[in-house]
Amino acid sequence: QNQKTDTLPYPASHTKWYDNISIGGYVQARYNRLLETNPDLECRQCDSSWGEGGGISLRRVRLKFSGNLGDYVYFYIQPDFASGGMGQHFGQIRDAYFEVGLTKKKEFRFRIGQSKVPFGFENMQSSQNRLPLDRNDGINSSIKNERELSVFFYYTPERIQELYKTVVREGLKGSGDYGIFGFGVFNGQTGNAPELNNELHVVARASYPFQVGNQIIEPGIQAYTGKYQMPLGNLSPGVSVRDDLNYLDQRIAATFVLYPQPFGIQAEYNIGRGPEFNKETGAIEETPLHGGYATLSYRMVLGSQLLYPFLRYHTYDGGKKFERDARSYEVNELEIGFEWRPVKAFELVAHYTLSSRRFEDFQRPDNLQEGGLLRLQAQVNF
Amino acid sequence: QNQKTDTLPYPASHTKWYDNISIGGYVQARYNRLLETNPDLECRQCDSSWGEGGGISLRRVRLKFSGNLGDYVYFYIQPDFASGGMGQHFGQIRDAYFEVGLTKKKEFRFRIGQSKVPFGFENMQSSQNRLPLDRNDGINSSIKNERELSVFFYYTPERIQELYKTVVREGLKGSGDYGIFGFGVFNGQTGNAPELNNELHVVARASYPFQVGNQIIEPGIQAYTGKYQMPLGNLSPGVSVRDDLNYLDQRIAATFVLYPQPFGIQAEYNIGRGPEFNKETGAIEETPLHGGYATLSYRMVLGSQLLYPFLRYHTYDGGKKFERDARSYEVNELEIGFEWRPVKAFELVAHYTLSSRRFEDFQRPDNLQEGGLLRLQAQVNF
Amino acid sequence: QNQKTDTLPYPASHTKWYDNISIGGYVQARYNRLLETNPDLECRQCDSSWGEGGGISLRRVRLKFSGNLGDYVYFYIQPDFASGGMGQHFGQIRDAYFEVGLTKKKEFRFRIGQSKVPFGFENMQSSQNRLPLDRNDGINSSIKNERELSVFFYYTPERIQELYKTVVREGLKGSGDYGIFGFGVFNGQTGNAPELNNELHVVARASYPFQVGNQIIEPGIQAYTGKYQMPLGNLSPGVSVRDDLNYLDQRIAATFVLYPQPFGIQAEYNIGRGPEFNKETGAIEETPLHGGYATLSYRMVLGSQLLYPFLRYHTYDGGKKFERDARSYEVNELEIGFEWRPVKAFELVAHYTLSSRRFEDFQRPDNLQEGGLLRLQAQVNF
Repeated sequence: QNQKTDTLPYPASHTKWYDNISIGGYVQARYNRLLETNPDLECRQCDSSWGEGGGISLRRVRLKFSGNLGDYVYFYIQPDFASGGMGQHFGQIRDAYFEVGLTKKKEFRFRIGQSKVPFGFENMQSSQNRLPLDRNDGINSSIKNERELSVFFYYTPERIQELYKTVVREGLKGSGDYGIFGFGVFNGQTGNAPELNNELHVVARASYPFQVGNQIIEPGIQAYTGKYQMPLGNLSPGVSVRDDLNYLDQRIAATFVLYPQPFGIQAEYNIGRGPEFNKETGAIEETPLHGGYATLSYRMVLGSQLLYPFLRYHTYDGGKKFERDARSYEVNELEIGFEWRPVKAFELVAHYTLSSRRFEDFQRPDNLQEGGLLRLQAQVNF
Repeated sequence: QNQKTDTLPYPASHTKWYDNISIGGYVQARYNRLLETNPDLECRQCDSSWGEGGGISLRRVRLKFSGNLGDYVYFYIQPDFASGGMGQHFGQIRDAYFEVGLTKKKEFRFRIGQSKVPFGFENMQSSQNRLPLDRNDGINSSIKNERELSVFFYYTPERIQELYKTVVREGLKGSGDYGIFGFGVFNGQTGNAPELNNELHVVARASYPFQVGNQIIEPGIQAYTGKYQMPLGNLSPGVSVRDDLNYLDQRIAATFVLYPQPFGIQAEYNIGRGPEFNKETGAIEETPLHGGYATLSYRMVLGSQLLYPFLRYHTYDGGKKFERDARSYEVNELEIGFEWRPVKAFELVAHYTLSSRRFEDFQRPDNLQEGGLLRLQAQVNF
Repeated sequence: QNQKTDTLPYPASHTKWYDNISIGGYVQARYNRLLETNPDLECRQCDSSWGEGGGISLRRVRLKFSGNLGDYVYFYIQPDFASGGMGQHFGQIRDAYFEVGLTKKKEFRFRIGQSKVPFGFENMQSSQNRLPLDRNDGINSSIKNERELSVFFYYTPERIQELYKTVVREGLKGSGDYGIFGFGVFNGQTGNAPELNNELHVVARASYPFQVGNQIIEPGIQAYTGKYQMPLGNLSPGVSVRDDLNYLDQRIAATFVLYPQPFGIQAEYNIGRGPEFNKETGAIEETPLHGGYATLSYRMVLGSQLLYPFLRYHTYDGGKKFERDARSYEVNELEIGFEWRPVKAFELVAHYTLSSRRFEDFQRPDNLQEGGLLRLQAQVNF
């Protein structure tokens, strides 16, 4: 990186690699079996260590490599080492993208690679900023792991760039900078899964943070549409499915955020259509879906510590396209708990979850599970 | 990481990421086919490139990311890129844990995540510190890859912390700091494997290093107990197994170490009970097991180089719970060789192995293999 | 790493870890579906997102960890996070090797681990230096991913070491330093695949760069031989194959390079023998193979930007031993396009490909595909 240049048109660089590239990450360890009333209550998408047979688990082991490369280019690579199914802990990409700014201020930029699809606010919040342990089913059922191979365009005025940074830095549980306006295309089969059809999905989002007195409010709206192809490996033998395996996959969502200074509200709701298993017909059909959540939180400074009590209610009625037979869901869940951050690098989350979950596919067509459990997570950020 | 803080209770940090986080690692390349007398003599747990069809191999490709984060928190993430079965070289976690100290001196600390179970001294020795290429079957048959998802508590007085550091730094082949007293819980199905039953294992260990004249001696004792559930994927069709698949998994071990100044002794023995295939009945049964080893070594300084001649004898009679049908083993092995370290970053190990190994399961019920071979390893540490 | 040494024979080191170890990498995102005339035209070895069902893809996500460790030792570890088949993005080793120099100048050195086999010039060029998106079938059909578990010896006089560095630094699309003379042994089943037979392959290469006026020319010659064992998993049910599954695998290649100052030529051709599916007999047979390419390029400096228009023609007639039934190929392909580097960290490649590809195995014995397509790649280097 510190190279003499003779005939190259670039100026010689005198920075060291560690000034351009930085490394960080976090580790989350969990235990979900205390006060458990129903071992058959589980949520595959949330946390595979819920319920029967679960034990101590690592939900996320992330390393982040990122950096600004000159005035126009930025990259971000984040493997997760808690992947590979059933606690095998293989390293798999979550994010791997780069950004090319059209100006030095990067107000206009393209983001290319695998990155989060700008659909929803909680989806954009990293788990370091989100209070409940897992995302709500209602909106997170859109895209597993929130990410897709994609090309997005984002616009963020310089003033708003600063605001987004401040919100995260001050522990106000922000989303990071996904632009006040974003749009783009993505494969549509969810991240780390092969594209199957020949059509790209399209997404657009607008989100605008502004100050009202001492408070910051951020309303937003977003929508995407495309065709999802059911992967053959997700079909039960005997289930009926369209000949071409393709289904409309379309959603629109509204967002309202009041950042916690000290009292916070975060609420979202989406409606749409997508594939869903129908136990009456034994078929995967295109059906309507709807769901969302509201989170109330409070940011408390106790001496040199931070404490965030919170409460979230969320609901979902629809399919999960990326699960077996586009599994049919009906979810109502209430979580009440706190995040405690005694020192900067460490945080502990505990919440009691009261849940009613119906999740049904061709192999398990009558399956309503209800119960409660205490969920614990210790996390280190570096 | 160098953030302005307005309303956060933590003091602003002025350190750079590379002062908090450090990266290291090592690579081991091996060849086991010279002077080989029996290509059917092999040891799956030790090194899959032993015997028929083996060639040049990478036994370990490790990257270590670690760091102290403030006064109370430490993290350690170590993926291995020689994993994934049959030389596929996928990245998989070995260690991924963090420690939270109860005091700034970290004399009392919790370690949470996937880390080594404090059972045995050679198990704790990293392969950079161990002289023979692979661990002894007797004690290493307890926990594949030595690690589990776990919560451990360790106590190390400050004076002993210093001693443990010195022992490793001076090339005395130490174990690192696993406390003079440790205890905790772990899933019990071995690392990178899913928990299957609803019970945690329990472990406790005491180990105390002390000086006698110029010598350092470290005796230790350790034990664990729990229930191991045979994974369905490890059962041969036709083998008999308990209905609930669960077996007692219980061991106790004694350790004696004289650090090599210049002559060293390291000896351990364990007894216990666990699942083991019985070829008379075709069933996996709970049986007694016992085994251990003694290693004699000598630390020689030759100019600016280090040379460690060594000899190890080890023996085991029992099952390996994590192999097919809890495969039955009877092992007697003698190794004689040396580790040579001509420069700080590079070491070469050569040892001749004389071995008698009986390893039998439902598909291969009569299998005693005997022979000798030369084993070679080149290693770089960074 | 900054350790007090009491009895160790090495001098105490006062360097920081980040002075010894450096991190870099690159990310490639692609789209291959524009102007596509035949969705059944594809090239598995080149890019699995060609053709039917392809979309936005990440072809390479590489992190490089490397460093000089004292005067004699060097290491290089490069995982790729675009691996694992079908866009699953698991991290898998490409390179993991270390070098031990016999002198401080490292003119003579051993390279041990998984690294590129010194066979061909384009094979040695990293994709940061190569102009066309994928390597030519003719020579790249020798070793999938170019790498093997191996022990190589390289000789590079100090003067040539400097020349190789200059060529890469100045954007002249060099190969890096694989010696003016190299030879060694490797497993022979290609990288990240298990060794199957008991025989090592042998390779030797000579390549000598020299100046003629202002131009630099590098002619080379290389050859390898060994036995390749067909993996059982690659055989179609019903295909005929030799009893011992082993086939001669032998090639010799000639290279000519004129580095682009500003006009460049790069041409290679190889002949040999290896396993290939024969659709007349339904058998995998040992057959002759031949193929190569010629690339014409031009290096243009436009203000502070670099632009390389290029044209490549390549051809291959032979088997690909590592594909199903040692799939039979007949390839003729013309590519015309450019690489544009507007800033140091970012480059964009576009080329139009006109292709005729016959690729046949037991399950698909009559398969000639012809057509054209536009291929696009955006890449960031760090």
